[in-house]
Amino acid sequence: MSVLIVGSIALDTVKTPVEEHTDQLGGSASYAALGASFFSPVKLVGVVGDDFPQSEFAFWKERKIDAAGVQRVPGKTFRWSGEYAWDMNTRETKSVALNVFEHFRPTLPPSYRATDFVLLANIAPALQSHVLDQMEKPRFVVADTMDLWIETARADLDALLPRVDLLILNDSEAREMTKETSLIKAGKRIRAAGPTYVAIKKGEHGALLFGEDEFFSCGAYPLEDIHDPTGAGDTFAGGMAGYLAATSGELGFPAFRRAMIYGSVLASFNVEAFSLERLRTLTRKEIDERYQIFRSMSQFEVVA
Amino acid sequence: MSVLIVGSIALDTVKTPVEEHTDQLGGSASYAALGASFFSPVKLVGVVGDDFPQSEFAFWKERKIDAAGVQRVPGKTFRWSGEYAWDMNTRETKSVALNVFEHFRPTLPPSYRATDFVLLANIAPALQSHVLDQMEKPRFVVADTMDLWIETARADLDALLPRVDLLILNDSEAREMTKETSLIKAGKRIRAAGPTYVAIKKGEHGALLFGEDEFFSCGAYPLEDIHDPTGAGDTFAGGMAGYLAATSGELGFPAFRRAMIYGSVLASFNVEAFSLERLRTLTRKEIDERYQIFRSMSQFEVVA
Repeated sequence: MSVLIVGSIALDTVKTPVEEHTDQLGGSASYAALGASFFSPVKLVGVVGDDFPQSEFAFWKERKIDAAGVQRVPGKTFRWSGEYAWDMNTRETKSVALNVFEHFRPTLPPSYRATDFVLLANIAPALQSHVLDQMEKPRFVVADTMDLWIETARADLDALLPRVDLLILNDSEAREMTKETSLIKAGKRIRAAGPTYVAIKKGEHGALLFGEDEFFSCGAYPLEDIHDPTGAGDTFAGGMAGYLAATSGELGFPAFRRAMIYGSVLASFNVEAFSLERLRTLTRKEIDERYQIFRSMSQFEVVA
Repeated sequence: MSVLIVGSIALDTVKTPVEEHTDQLGGSASYAALGASFFSPVKLVGVVGDDFPQSEFAFWKERKIDAAGVQRVPGKTFRWSGEYAWDMNTRETKSVALNVFEHFRPTLPPSYRATDFVLLANIAPALQSHVLDQMEKPRFVVADTMDLWIETARADLDALLPRVDLLILNDSEAREMTKETSLIKAGKRIRAAGPTYVAIKKGEHGALLFGEDEFFSCGAYPLEDIHDPTGAGDTFAGGMAGYLAATSGELGFPAFRRAMIYGSVLASFNVEAFSLERLRTLTRKEIDERYQIFRSMSQFEVVA
């Protein structure tokens, strides 16, 4: 089953304590679409400028990512630049140039409107709602969000939440949204605001999943070296949504557990290289092997 | 199989944003011994003053905690006082009065010396080594430590490490000890310094276990309300050591995984009430029930 993905498409300049790379493919939709494409065909929605490399469209085609919904408009592509601190956990945004993204108003091609699965990757919640408004009757809606929207577009976000089946956000965002210190309380409160499922990402500490009287907790895949954390959360969301779309016949809690592990696995590969470089050459076989290692690291036996 | 436990025995005064309790039983050995006692008989080593309540000796006896190694000496019992911040994650030590603990030199009763299992709960590493010196041939040695010893008694700690089979410490201590940001690198480096196994506690984020080419990661049991985090790490160590002593025939990695879950379960009960109050009434049945819930929260299926 296809998954429609809308979000930002950017050219990123990222600096870490050891490397710097300029104008690499980035943006929430780029990471999410590639993450999802390992499991399901993707219909991508976004906007790029006339400076955007045509080679990326060729790559998307090869990956079965339908880019009919990616508008190319006159002007420059959205650019973001950030720098990571020595611990790779904190980053500073050095510059943002919205460019063609500033007036982006996603319009779905007619061929997209009947898609059953939707991932509203991280963009303004008003745009996320605008995409849903154009859809016929999506069966399952995943949304990602960020601190910026919690702080500056809270009413739009609150209006979106009842339309969302699975909300994905990180730990600090969950605390900010609910004013709860306990992530357990925060997850439950966010569920009460609309989403049937809530996934809270905790970076190197893994992720939590909240459902109706159901709870799942997983660690992160252990990595010794992280080269570029950019897009890890978007890749996680893409992997999770892509896997769920692929198992669309079965949307019970066991499928959500597996989806969260796949999201974590995808994110762990993503941070091993700059930009999307690791994901470009990744194979489903490598993903499944890491899933099995993940499982062997997390299992323990029943006791009497 | 019995487990010998040495550490501090204190009377704690603890303040949280909502409660304050004075002169409650505390200290690393008190928490560890009670935690271990759910699985194995305990031989306790420590020192108390003439103000220490006799009722605690009666309680230990009831719990099959042998207190022959607890010296009662003239003077006051070690006192510690601390206050937790609103998030219950950070605490400030308000006062420390070592009292009889200042000149504590643990001496093992002859009946203790042949014990196979040892838990060196958190005290100065020179004292931990001094206990090992008096033992015949311990089969398995668990040690806990803290930032204070990493900062002020590093040579003593380094001398102890090759004598330790399982070292338990928390995430910030592991980073401080190794100067590594990555906990994965830190765990491996600590193993290289001596201990066959290293357990890194991450508080609300769970724990990691490192063995020879083996790795285990678990979350923390999800709690909405934490009443007093004091002693959670000591209880974790006690539960882990007590469970391992109980399964002494089998010291493979699967047993360590289960031990870590039992340690986490014990710690999760401990923080539900002040001091040792929750552990005093806890039953093995409640522990095993929570173990099973823990398991159901952590499991996910094999995929093709």
